[in-house]
Amino acid sequence: MISSTANKQVRQVVELAKKARVRREEGLYVVEGVRMCRELEPEKIRALYVSESFLASKEHRDFLSGLSWEPVTDTVMKVMADTQTPQGILALVRQDHYTLSDLLSRPGEAHLLLLETIQDPGNLGTILRAGEGAGITGIVMDRATVDIYNPKVIRSTMGSIFRVPFVYVEDLKDACAQLKAAGIPVLAAHLRGELPYDRADLAGPFAFLIGNEARGLREETAALADILVRIPMEGQVESLNAAVAASILMFEAARQRRSIRKK
Amino acid sequence: MISSTANKQVRQVVELAKKARVRREEGLYVVEGVRMCRELEPEKIRALYVSESFLASKEHRDFLSGLSWEPVTDTVMKVMADTQTPQGILALVRQDHYTLSDLLSRPGEAHLLLLETIQDPGNLGTILRAGEGAGITGIVMDRATVDIYNPKVIRSTMGSIFRVPFVYVEDLKDACAQLKAAGIPVLAAHLRGELPYDRADLAGPFAFLIGNEARGLREETAALADILVRIPMEGQVESLNAAVAASILMFEAARQRRSIRKK
Repeated sequence: MISSTANKQVRQVVELAKKARVRREEGLYVVEGVRMCRELEPEKIRALYVSESFLASKEHRDFLSGLSWEPVTDTVMKVMADTQTPQGILALVRQDHYTLSDLLSRPGEAHLLLLETIQDPGNLGTILRAGEGAGITGIVMDRATVDIYNPKVIRSTMGSIFRVPFVYVEDLKDACAQLKAAGIPVLAAHLRGELPYDRADLAGPFAFLIGNEARGLREETAALADILVRIPMEGQVESLNAAVAASILMFEAARQRRSIRKK
Repeated sequence: MISSTANKQVRQVVELAKKARVRREEGLYVVEGVRMCRELEPEKIRALYVSESFLASKEHRDFLSGLSWEPVTDTVMKVMADTQTPQGILALVRQDHYTLSDLLSRPGEAHLLLLETIQDPGNLGTILRAGEGAGITGIVMDRATVDIYNPKVIRSTMGSIFRVPFVYVEDLKDACAQLKAAGIPVLAAHLRGELPYDRADLAGPFAFLIGNEARGLREETAALADILVRIPMEGQVESLNAAVAASILMFEAARQRRSIRKK
């Protein structure tokens, strides 16, 4: 039973939860909560910590059978956990590594998002969750996008992080060149776009560029797009929240694919 | 020049920013930042505070001409402001009061959202902003929904709070009865819904029920709906973020209205 918050393992978890650099160096990240821990593939779990209170429930003990885990006091769990009211279970997990080639393995079915400098962890997590629901096949991010293994991102994905492939790239320009070479058109929502997004053909392969929350896409990034679309807007609204814009585009694509399958 | 953080007006702003009860009792709220303050109707501004740094810019002084305002030190502004890096301008503003009858004045054109216990300020603000963009005509909320005059809500509306009518109601059931009496069908997105949302007729008047972030709609609330729809989902996603679900439904409605106008 770990009862000291000065314990080396406790310090490691806290560091991993706080610092993207430490996560990158160790190739690990922290997953909290019963629901999320249930979805982990056992071979990816490096360590599993459970609190005394957690162990008090028979259902919880059943879930743990066959796994190796370390008990900690409730006080220690509170220090390890990123949440205000921790659920009492927390795992150190091996990071997944995908390559752009993985995401381009079936270019004819590619429905990709390309994110430029998304900085809010909640937005990135929400995009992953909505993206899985809309059937996207992967997410490509520039290095200035928030770390996908940030605990707030993990939490707001509701588990989609385990299922949607993703990759960070040095340069979105090079990535776009590879997409185009694979026959995947690149789209961007842009104020200059004239084609309403629902008039674009989204049933086939595509990659959508989504820009930073405050500044939108940089001009040179928007210039990478083959097609500029717009989301027609009423009132005095100039732009939408990044996760909302991405979701509207992705679910319109899903709608078009369904309606073609019906024909 | 207010230079003491113990000043009565400073304390009032801090209280108003913090407490929904105080905002309700005084019928006031706090608006921060140049962009948002520019959109205020001058007759609604009860007090306007600007920092020394703000006043250093000629453009800012031009904006203030014709308005009455009170200078404060940068230190005082930092205490008054809800943001980490305040822009240096902050207004006390009279709350707007709409009634359900206001929102039902043109029932044939009603595109309403009915929110049950939305608790995250960012979600509520994002829903208002996307709602204005999608052309909704109003938002009805139950009392357990976060206070719309919460500074985080205000900020994430990006100004839509000044333009989209809203009302808090004691009971969503009574509100639904009034909507139905006015000929406005009530829809809900629900796991039991069989009709894909894009197959529902959303070009005419409607009101959408959106449930709490964690629990979704209560069963008795979902039972108020005339039509249960579903957002078809791929992967293992069971539900979407409330603001994302609302946006997908509202922009599908906007898309249907546009495509009918074209015919």
